[in-house]
Amino acid sequence: MNPDSTPREIRETIRRGRWARPTSGLAPAFAQANLVILDRSLAFELLLFCVRNPKPCPILEIMEPGVWEPRITAPGADIRTDVPLYRVWKQGELLAETPDITAHWNDNLVTFLLGCSFSFESALMAAGIPVRNIEEGRNVSMYTTNRPCIPAGPFSAPLVVSMRPIPDDQVVRAVQVTSRYASVHGAPVHIGDGTALGIRDLGRPDFGDPVTIRDGETPVFWACGVTSSLAVLSARPDLCLTHSPGHMFITDSPNESWAVI
Amino acid sequence: MNPDSTPREIRETIRRGRWARPTSGLAPAFAQANLVILDRSLAFELLLFCVRNPKPCPILEIMEPGVWEPRITAPGADIRTDVPLYRVWKQGELLAETPDITAHWNDNLVTFLLGCSFSFESALMAAGIPVRNIEEGRNVSMYTTNRPCIPAGPFSAPLVVSMRPIPDDQVVRAVQVTSRYASVHGAPVHIGDGTALGIRDLGRPDFGDPVTIRDGETPVFWACGVTSSLAVLSARPDLCLTHSPGHMFITDSPNESWAVI
Repeated sequence: MNPDSTPREIRETIRRGRWARPTSGLAPAFAQANLVILDRSLAFELLLFCVRNPKPCPILEIMEPGVWEPRITAPGADIRTDVPLYRVWKQGELLAETPDITAHWNDNLVTFLLGCSFSFESALMAAGIPVRNIEEGRNVSMYTTNRPCIPAGPFSAPLVVSMRPIPDDQVVRAVQVTSRYASVHGAPVHIGDGTALGIRDLGRPDFGDPVTIRDGETPVFWACGVTSSLAVLSARPDLCLTHSPGHMFITDSPNESWAVI
Repeated sequence: MNPDSTPREIRETIRRGRWARPTSGLAPAFAQANLVILDRSLAFELLLFCVRNPKPCPILEIMEPGVWEPRITAPGADIRTDVPLYRVWKQGELLAETPDITAHWNDNLVTFLLGCSFSFESALMAAGIPVRNIEEGRNVSMYTTNRPCIPAGPFSAPLVVSMRPIPDDQVVRAVQVTSRYASVHGAPVHIGDGTALGIRDLGRPDFGDPVTIRDGETPVFWACGVTSSLAVLSARPDLCLTHSPGHMFITDSPNESWAVI
């Protein structure tokens, strides 16, 4: 696929079953979204969890029960077919991975689209700040921390963070650049020693891949969307549909439209 | 009441029935909140309305059904007694004003605390920018515009704006200062000619009082919390409890904690 294709063109390619791979690098100027779908009976309290924990769970769009078109961020799209790979969960256990969830759809399902760090990675690179996981072609390193999120109803989770090593003389700029993107994880939550977050070994992430940390670089930690997955599964909903990690929903909203100033 | 009292001291004075007046100017460093309380059956879709329209409906805190203590923004407070004056609405019609809603409370009620422009007015004054409604001791001028909010379920409303005349050479600074406060209405929605918003006569506001606009001043318009009141009443809920205009809930959260950068 041409990475310069429009989000609409990419979604159509995905819908036709011609792209079941991760979406990193596709349509880099546009916001990609984490996906969570669950029953309306749990929707208010999951939304409350997102509102109380905006750094790990930034809201891009939430749809009314039964609505499968993201009318605000991707009019014309179909959330049941336009993600390359989905996961189907029952009572918090993974049941299947599938490229199409139409068979699982019902009119009581509520869709949550949550922001993704791909948005601020583009901004970091545009500012000349290296993003190691992209340089090394790996998934970003993610860690479960000792910081609890604020629970809401049956939803609770520890804060999960992603880590990127930043050259010491660019750490301040990295804070500034990502602070603009409050709707897509925003400013870092921590700079420096991971043990303050309860992380014992940066070389052994809980999710994703390890990346190289060079001399003269400082680990910088951002809130991560995996937090929302842990929160959702903590409630063990009868049915939950999500994207498969790295296989995001690509919206029509430019990253820049999510910058706060 | 000493305006330098702490939010907790002020809430206790209100709870004892010793302050049934507007809260403008009290504890000016702390965020004050618009209040909406309604049944859990409508909570998801009202929250959706707020998320879709964050400029007029900035969320400070939302509580689980039946919870009357704002544990995040004002631990120890009681939302049923700590607002100077409440309004009780049935099917969208005003039934009563009262200093205590304990008799109306039930365990299915969900409380929404939404941001208020008092927060950024403090920031404007700290930056040396005059706030005419405060100078003249009047309520701010508010207007219903021709811009619809994005509806959610049964909730819909036109955008309501507040207007402050700003000296021409301070308009840019006013945009900068208020942009930091994205959680409490944030940047202006419009600068200059009110007719672009469908406002015919700035001297005849739809809510609040007219204020003097001097030569060399430009009208600047911000999204206004009255929008949420119109949205709530549009759904004609069986029961709805709100603050009485100007009689806000005073939180323990410093305005500065709501600044995005």
